[in-house]
Amino acid sequence: MRSGSAPSPPRYEVIGIEGVPEVKPGDDIARFIAEAAGRQSTPLAGGDLLVVGQKIVSKAEGRLVRLADVTPSPVAEAMAVGLGRDPRLVEVILRESRRVVRMDQGVLITETHHGWVCANAGVDQSNVERDCVALLPEDPDRSARALRDRIRTLTGADVCVIVADTFGRPWREGLTNVAIGLAGLAPVRSYLGERDPAGRPLQATILAVADELAAAAEPVMGKLDRIPAAIVRGLPLVPGEEGSKPLLRDPARDLFR
Amino acid sequence: MRSGSAPSPPRYEVIGIEGVPEVKPGDDIARFIAEAAGRQSTPLAGGDLLVVGQKIVSKAEGRLVRLADVTPSPVAEAMAVGLGRDPRLVEVILRESRRVVRMDQGVLITETHHGWVCANAGVDQSNVERDCVALLPEDPDRSARALRDRIRTLTGADVCVIVADTFGRPWREGLTNVAIGLAGLAPVRSYLGERDPAGRPLQATILAVADELAAAAEPVMGKLDRIPAAIVRGLPLVPGEEGSKPLLRDPARDLFR
Repeated sequence: MRSGSAPSPPRYEVIGIEGVPEVKPGDDIARFIAEAAGRQSTPLAGGDLLVVGQKIVSKAEGRLVRLADVTPSPVAEAMAVGLGRDPRLVEVILRESRRVVRMDQGVLITETHHGWVCANAGVDQSNVERDCVALLPEDPDRSARALRDRIRTLTGADVCVIVADTFGRPWREGLTNVAIGLAGLAPVRSYLGERDPAGRPLQATILAVADELAAAAEPVMGKLDRIPAAIVRGLPLVPGEEGSKPLLRDPARDLFR
Repeated sequence: MRSGSAPSPPRYEVIGIEGVPEVKPGDDIARFIAEAAGRQSTPLAGGDLLVVGQKIVSKAEGRLVRLADVTPSPVAEAMAVGLGRDPRLVEVILRESRRVVRMDQGVLITETHHGWVCANAGVDQSNVERDCVALLPEDPDRSARALRDRIRTLTGADVCVIVADTFGRPWREGLTNVAIGLAGLAPVRSYLGERDPAGRPLQATILAVADELAAAAEPVMGKLDRIPAAIVRGLPLVPGEEGSKPLLRDPARDLFR
């Protein structure tokens, strides 16, 4: 019956998850997300990739700091003057960092303890209580694994999980969503050793598919925390348990540190 | 009849376009793509975003150089020794560049005449004839506009177009697909002036949605040129005629040049 039928191209769908309640420390966001997905008639299913914004993960994990409780160091005080920023915020950023990569024009770019290079060590003041800031999860891969396990327990569905945040990048304007934590899928797809039809090795050999799928989820996710997660459905994913580490460029191979 | 019905979340679909023939200079790739999309029962429709890989655009536009025809300059010869690369290839890369950003570890990163910063000025040896290299389109925004116009003429469908290429980035491993040419849509979405529920200005204020959608298309596009284009369907796009330029970071605001 297949002869003559139209070919079936590769395709997938991206579905925002609306109706996730406001998250407080200790909340079971896997349950929030699974229930919200069910309410909108797109229940989580095996093979789905669930992309979750970092903010609700950080909130659930209690990764919040009240600036009134922070005493800035003299270094933070001095840097804050140069940056025109709150010295308590600079102190929090420095505590989350292992190295300052750039400090100029009011922008502070650091390498986090995880190894991510981003503005303000991912410390963010929006969508949290006044006078509070949210830190990145302590171990976003662990967060992703915990979400995956909890969703399997709650729903029986074996999903992959990406914890994502919006990072800037040099040279190009605007932020894009990237993966900072992963569970269940391989973060990169390698074409090493593959050849084009003319027999030449492919030059674009490693694709950061986890970052591409985090990016794919962002356009349906609401910046105002109303849609903190999205389902990527229908795309075959390469299984992997190595987490996000393969997305960290080896500093020895990085020409821009 | 809507009361009690499930909410309708934001969602969109990404569909690879299979069966595009091998492209030669002068070919009408708008027709190739529209016909291939029709054959697989996903004809292009108004409101679609069409993401087209740079390679077939470059081929159709004749942006191919035979290395046997290239005489390297003394500068290219010297750089080629340091890089361990073919001096004729280095010569082509330098001709496509207005500035060398980094040269180290066999990697040559330049700023193209368009203003993109990428490896090898986007010059690529894979999926072209042996002894040939493909350059980026001379003006990828013009290429995107021409594709858009031609598709409207052929099919009546008013689509948006992104011409995309896979670029590396500092700090993170692996390439991601990004937009280098646009027609019909605004490349960034700005949240400037918007506030979170606590009344604080949003920190992540400009999202590079064109790059995110180029990235979304990549997982269904084949590196071996078998799927050189994809449809992004169902996502409301902000109209815009400014092309890709808003994605170029102002050098004065770039801390990594």
